Amino acid sequence: MNTAFAQRMSGVSGSAIRELFRLMGDPQIISFGGGNPNKATFPVQAVEEIIRDVMQQNGADLLQYGATEGYMPLRQSVLEHMVCPKGVKADVENIIITTGSMQALAMLTKTMIDPGDAILVESPTFLGALQCFHSYQANCIPVEMDDDGVIIADLEAKIQQYHPKMFYCIPTFQNPTGKTLSPERRKQVAQLAAKYNIIVAEDDPYCELRYEGEAVPPIKSFDETGNVVMLCSFSKILSPGLRVGAAIGQEEIIRKITMLKQSGDTHTSNLSQAIADQFLRRGMLKPHLERICPLYKEQMDTMLGAIKEHFPAGCTFTKPQGGLFVWGNLPAMNCSMLDFAKRCAQEAKVAFVPGQHFYADPNTMGLTTLRLNFSACTPEQIQVGVERLAQLVKQVI
Amino acid sequence: MNTAFAQRMSGVSGSAIRELFRLMGDPQIISFGGGNPNKATFPVQAVEEIIRDVMQQNGADLLQYGATEGYMPLRQSVLEHMVCPKGVKADVENIIITTGSMQALAMLTKTMIDPGDAILVESPTFLGALQCFHSYQANCIPVEMDDDGVIIADLEAKIQQYHPKMFYCIPTFQNPTGKTLSPERRKQVAQLAAKYNIIVAEDDPYCELRYEGEAVPPIKSFDETGNVVMLCSFSKILSPGLRVGAAIGQEEIIRKITMLKQSGDTHTSNLSQAIADQFLRRGMLKPHLERICPLYKEQMDTMLGAIKEHFPAGCTFTKPQGGLFVWGNLPAMNCSMLDFAKRCAQEAKVAFVPGQHFYADPNTMGLTTLRLNFSACTPEQIQVGVERLAQLVKQVI
Repeated sequence: MNTAFAQRMSGVSGSAIRELFRLMGDPQIISFGGGNPNKATFPVQAVEEIIRDVMQQNGADLLQYGATEGYMPLRQSVLEHMVCPKGVKADVENIIITTGSMQALAMLTKTMIDPGDAILVESPTFLGALQCFHSYQANCIPVEMDDDGVIIADLEAKIQQYHPKMFYCIPTFQNPTGKTLSPERRKQVAQLAAKYNIIVAEDDPYCELRYEGEAVPPIKSFDETGNVVMLCSFSKILSPGLRVGAAIGQEEIIRKITMLKQSGDTHTSNLSQAIADQFLRRGMLKPHLERICPLYKEQMDTMLGAIKEHFPAGCTFTKPQGGLFVWGNLPAMNCSMLDFAKRCAQEAKVAFVPGQHFYADPNTMGLTTLRLNFSACTPEQIQVGVERLAQLVKQVI
Repeated sequence: MNTAFAQRMSGVSGSAIRELFRLMGDPQIISFGGGNPNKATFPVQAVEEIIRDVMQQNGADLLQYGATEGYMPLRQSVLEHMVCPKGVKADVENIIITTGSMQALAMLTKTMIDPGDAILVESPTFLGALQCFHSYQANCIPVEMDDDGVIIADLEAKIQQYHPKMFYCIPTFQNPTGKTLSPERRKQVAQLAAKYNIIVAEDDPYCELRYEGEAVPPIKSFDETGNVVMLCSFSKILSPGLRVGAAIGQEEIIRKITMLKQSGDTHTSNLSQAIADQFLRRGMLKPHLERICPLYKEQMDTMLGAIKEHFPAGCTFTKPQGGLFVWGNLPAMNCSMLDFAKRCAQEAKVAFVPGQHFYADPNTMGLTTLRLNFSACTPEQIQVGVERLAQLVKQVI
């Protein structure tokens, strides 16, 4: 068998992070390399109770085929609990439930993007999004960021230069940087989308994981023209393993996504949808967040404190107010970041992800950057791990 | 907002069947229009027990992110219970779990098909597959069938003429015709795939729903070159609402599909996978089939008997040995099949799906055909419904 694969496959490769994970298989390693929520935060008992109830009340229907648009009660409860309270105007015609927000992004991309189309991305951005865009043969164009997120002047310049179909944005506690787009810029992003008629894919899975500061309204709340598609996820507020997300947008876009999902996976697991629905309807989200955010805050504060204490001058790190990640930039190094990451794993038993993989061109960009995740480790491990990492950094800069 | 959609969207439209379903919303209607398994067959209590156990034993891990390739125990149990006993040689590297077999087909298509590539399809075939292929801008070429499935001479002629990348085949109790590809032809399909180096997508969701006759080995069991990709589904043997399927094929293809799934939906619901796994490991599949097949057999036999009793000469119907569908062809009619279907729904309160929608070109092919599903109705309803339908048919032929 040597039938040629489709041309799009030439741009698709396995996640570099996943490969690195294998290197990091050593159970003694203190890992800042992952991106998963801490499994100790999952409301296992609440989910068990919900499942018992929904199966008793509705078991056979949940096991039957469901609507491609999603389980109607969940479409309503996502709007009521996660979307409309943030100032977004949306009705059930504006929402489709997806198999995680990753699928929402993949289906939106398939709906909008022809090979060669430009997509603007924050620089750096989520690796999975880059892989998705490459699989649709998009031309990913980086937009510069500062501490307040994407720089509006650069965004507009890139729009004028590249005529993109879409701008992909993680506005709150961004993966990988932990940065949050300021409210003023969110409004400007919505205005630019309207002015130049491009789609904004607003991917906001971390927004509820805020440990400090005031909540910021989504870009979608400033959208008066239907150019913004908001992607919601249950992965960081309930469970990633259930694979439940949603896309909220203009009715015509949601209809197109629905058609693609029909021959994509038909619909999202009914059981997963019913669990997510009851989690919202029973008012469990708010107390759950009140329980888990202090845990994550302690981890984040420990990491930021240890970085301040141990890292040498010239190393800069972001200071997020939430999410799961801190982002660092080192001065000029005497080895590659990938070699350094391997050395850290072997010598210091500390793992992290080299930042270059989060850039549109990983061979030339972000070569001295790194992403640190704090959600998988205890505060004690974070103290030890950051100190070890800082010691090794001193040997390579 | 009037940003243009991707070019591929011009070939994508909502399912004609789904539109017809709305017309058929009348609860008094006897519906032969659906394609769902009967929800009374779902093992609700067994699923409840399994969920209780897997959540107690493994709850937090099931709620965490999982591997893109699928839950390892399920990959193994699908091979052990559903694949290898049928004479297919495969190891865990040859299987990926998907969000229903629809996703397996969609990901295989994305892996293999460039716009304009030819895909051979049985004529008629599954509507969802046609929609999927159109969304990847494939050129769907029909291959003629007789009572033993696809005609090998026509298959080879079409391969020589169109140089397809792929042949899509539902070999057992096909949707929509109920036909089964003979064992001899299965072997020939595998040989042609090897000879001309094309992929065979063997979609076999109905194979366990056999009510008469001997089981037939899958095309994949004759595959010596890795050209056949077998698609498995839990939708008709456990539950469609859980969305669990699998693709079994050559390691390189499975790896490519895994890369696409990573930025497609990341992975399939862990809970759904754990349920399917335990259903197999606890030996529940065989007794479940022994319970449900007699129920479906009674429905099928009732439908075939009523057709024989009531339909006028010149109308021909398939005589399946399993599955969910019977397929009919009427003599020349004095109205369109769509108009007739609407009239049947309104006057006779009987619903069915016009067959033309299952053809690569629904405007010119299968204009006098119809699909009857027997799984949703009681034997009494089937008796009454077929008689009413036959009476109306006499008025239009």
